[in-house]
Amino acid sequence: MKILIIGATGTIGKHITAALQKDHEVIQAGSKSTDVQVDISSTVSIENFYRQVGNFDALICAAGDAQFGPFANMKDVDFRTGVNSKLMGQVNLVLIGQHYINPKGSFTLTSGVLAEDPIAMGTAVSMVNGAVNGFVRGAAIELENGVRINAVSPDVVEESTAYFPYFPGHIPVTMNRVTQAYIKSVLGKQTGQVYKVV
Amino acid sequence: MKILIIGATGTIGKHITAALQKDHEVIQAGSKSTDVQVDISSTVSIENFYRQVGNFDALICAAGDAQFGPFANMKDVDFRTGVNSKLMGQVNLVLIGQHYINPKGSFTLTSGVLAEDPIAMGTAVSMVNGAVNGFVRGAAIELENGVRINAVSPDVVEESTAYFPYFPGHIPVTMNRVTQAYIKSVLGKQTGQVYKVV
Repeated sequence: MKILIIGATGTIGKHITAALQKDHEVIQAGSKSTDVQVDISSTVSIENFYRQVGNFDALICAAGDAQFGPFANMKDVDFRTGVNSKLMGQVNLVLIGQHYINPKGSFTLTSGVLAEDPIAMGTAVSMVNGAVNGFVRGAAIELENGVRINAVSPDVVEESTAYFPYFPGHIPVTMNRVTQAYIKSVLGKQTGQVYKVV
Repeated sequence: MKILIIGATGTIGKHITAALQKDHEVIQAGSKSTDVQVDISSTVSIENFYRQVGNFDALICAAGDAQFGPFANMKDVDFRTGVNSKLMGQVNLVLIGQHYINPKGSFTLTSGVLAEDPIAMGTAVSMVNGAVNGFVRGAAIELENGVRINAVSPDVVEESTAYFPYFPGHIPVTMNRVTQAYIKSVLGKQTGQVYKVV
């Protein structure tokens, strides 16, 4: 299977890459040094990315920024970070990628626990994660040629120790459990699912 | 109670207005002819709106556009309609309005059934509705001075007959049940809730 991983060198992406590249052709992509560069906040960059890599069987996105900050001080621009990156970045990977993906291929996006289990300073992230989950549920019934789509929605992961103070009482999830959720999406047959790893 | 209703002349808004103006000071607002004009897709317009109406006790938003269309043909720009109007329009009403609302006041936004129960051509709406629900859950724990926030998430409403063909098998909900969900949010004490009217 030819699998594109966006954010392949990130905290989660490197584990997904390691798990899949034994048995599959993995193309590592992202904004940093990887096989192929892509800036998901730019539709032009996404178009160029797909033209460069050609047809594929699965795309995993474990990338996308959103802004944390105190709600009382936040403005439109702070919410737009998440809108343009983690939300519309992932949406555009699918909107454009649907024209390059092979029949029965799959998209796997990343949302997160804050959609339902909010924390202080996390409202913009809660919004974006909720949006990604809604998008996946909608797109699943519209995608054609047997193409599937799911989201992985993890709690804070064990390697993101810098985030721990902001997630009081959250039990960090293991990298292995998170990785397996992506594997389940790519190698399984389900669609329209939000795999909560909590 | 001084209550601002955005979209006051709309299908849902006119019923909310009728129900609340017997016992409260209702200010009808929206893009069409009402007490006060406001374009929720513009932060400048929202700022001007709040300056004009002054402090208030409750804001209800029953306004906001999002684009329906076949997923295979949709592009970034089609999704941005919903992002800029129903999503960021409502978000900005709260981000800016938090500085004008009275202590113990409330915001009530509108999402919709498609967040969890998608239909063909509705993915952009599913995304926006999911985003509004996530936003409300996050903002509820960050708003200060006892200010509350909830969303009303209705199925297709009985008066929106033009939408019925796009909602096969959905049982249209009565205007009364939808209206009461807004009343529950404004006159009740709950926060961070998504009131599903299905």
